[in-house]
Amino acid sequence: MIETLSSYQARNNAQLNLWLNRIPHQNLDLINAMRYGLLLGGKRARPFLVYMTGEMLGCSSEELDTPASAIECIHAYSLIHDDLPAMDDDELRRGHQTCHIKFDEATAILTGDALQTLAFTILAEGELSSAGESCRVKMIQNLAQASGAQGMCLGQSLDLAAENRTVSLTELEEIHRNKTGALLKCAIRLGALSAGKKGLDLLPQLDKFADAIGLAFQVQDDILDIISDTETLGKPQGSDLELNKSTYPSLLGLEGAQEKAQTLLHEALQALDMIPYNTQSLEEFARYVIERKN
Amino acid sequence: MIETLSSYQARNNAQLNLWLNRIPHQNLDLINAMRYGLLLGGKRARPFLVYMTGEMLGCSSEELDTPASAIECIHAYSLIHDDLPAMDDDELRRGHQTCHIKFDEATAILTGDALQTLAFTILAEGELSSAGESCRVKMIQNLAQASGAQGMCLGQSLDLAAENRTVSLTELEEIHRNKTGALLKCAIRLGALSAGKKGLDLLPQLDKFADAIGLAFQVQDDILDIISDTETLGKPQGSDLELNKSTYPSLLGLEGAQEKAQTLLHEALQALDMIPYNTQSLEEFARYVIERKN
Repeated sequence: MIETLSSYQARNNAQLNLWLNRIPHQNLDLINAMRYGLLLGGKRARPFLVYMTGEMLGCSSEELDTPASAIECIHAYSLIHDDLPAMDDDELRRGHQTCHIKFDEATAILTGDALQTLAFTILAEGELSSAGESCRVKMIQNLAQASGAQGMCLGQSLDLAAENRTVSLTELEEIHRNKTGALLKCAIRLGALSAGKKGLDLLPQLDKFADAIGLAFQVQDDILDIISDTETLGKPQGSDLELNKSTYPSLLGLEGAQEKAQTLLHEALQALDMIPYNTQSLEEFARYVIERKN
Repeated sequence: MIETLSSYQARNNAQLNLWLNRIPHQNLDLINAMRYGLLLGGKRARPFLVYMTGEMLGCSSEELDTPASAIECIHAYSLIHDDLPAMDDDELRRGHQTCHIKFDEATAILTGDALQTLAFTILAEGELSSAGESCRVKMIQNLAQASGAQGMCLGQSLDLAAENRTVSLTELEEIHRNKTGALLKCAIRLGALSAGKKGLDLLPQLDKFADAIGLAFQVQDDILDIISDTETLGKPQGSDLELNKSTYPSLLGLEGAQEKAQTLLHEALQALDMIPYNTQSLEEFARYVIERKN
């Protein structure tokens, strides 16, 4: 699984690099910081989901490069902004200095802004499969919905509002359904929409799968924040505790959180059972989500 | 002219309000701050240009609401981020507290992010004229190009890099062609594309007009920063001087800058001469750009 991830990660990096190379002013801090934020490390889970879902439905990797690149730009921008001093104030990300430490705060803000824009440039201009072309506007709608005030930004806002107080399990799920889940679900949708109507018809089942692994992803993140170490994580271990954040382990206990992850994996696999294609890669990814070490 | 601007401003505000009302979680800081940043004051120059250009080509106001709303979201987000402590560190905007003062810095960052996303949601989901529908993807491409690392973000980045040193007139024009000009030009393009092929054919002439008024807009801004007062401007007078920024008056002298504005107006009017439609509104706007007091 790690090997497959790595090969798609390399593919995604090459694609993102092509998009970056098209921008004039290559020697500006803004462009250097965009490259730094986009290409330095990262599992590329969202692009991977685009590729796995689209290929399951018969698309080639080439036909999935555009949505895979677009969604990674959104993810990268969100990390850069989340790390800012006014937000989570993190100095380490993926084993490297965060963008505002490596460059400066103004550059980090602008870099995030420009990466969000680049996501929409890519999705509006990049090549798609002929079936996917009919869904281009729908893909843009989906990416915007998943990223903004009804998705990822909402989740981050709810998360900030929840600092220093204990939230209920329901509230915690709402935070993560938006903060992490919305974009993971969007990745799967973009992969599906790349196959045109065939994928469109499959969205309800794929959404169920996405909801389960999206939450599982966060549960495992919370678990790793406790049981892993800074070197393996590439970011400070124990930072949730430090920020006084409610997490699955803090609400359910470590064992309870691990059980929760298993339950979500089970739900994800059940959702795949309803899909009449070869779901092996998605299944492996679901297992990876709750077994990964970083 | 001011009256026409006001009536379209009210129209644009009502439209933006409708989009904001569709977002769940109305009582969250994030949504309150989005409303604050979008609706509190502002001339609505960009929406106005969308309406004037589109109506010149036969579109109704209704058919232009979508691009007009989208572009104002981009402008509003850029102001919120530009005002942040790490950027221009401004406490006053349009006569009110800036977003990070009224709320907090984290909320201001997220609010800008979510407003950028909302721009793309609006352009991907909003109603367009039937002629404009064929240009929807092209509109999204244009908006992204004008906003990101090849447009507005680039301009802001060049502007930051130019603080505390004297730049040449050529460099100054490059800064403003990107920082302010790109989005004004985009507004005119979105208006034109709303008329479909008819507008597409007219882009070269409209671009010339846009280039001239875009630069004139900035020259007049620089002049007002010297000759106006904080109350009229709604933001601190003299802030360019304080930040040690190169401006047209600092490079050309006040009279030189005023002559520059006149030359640009002349260029803009010449470009309109080549357009076989009723260009009166655009002409009035061009005159307004260099005669306005705030």
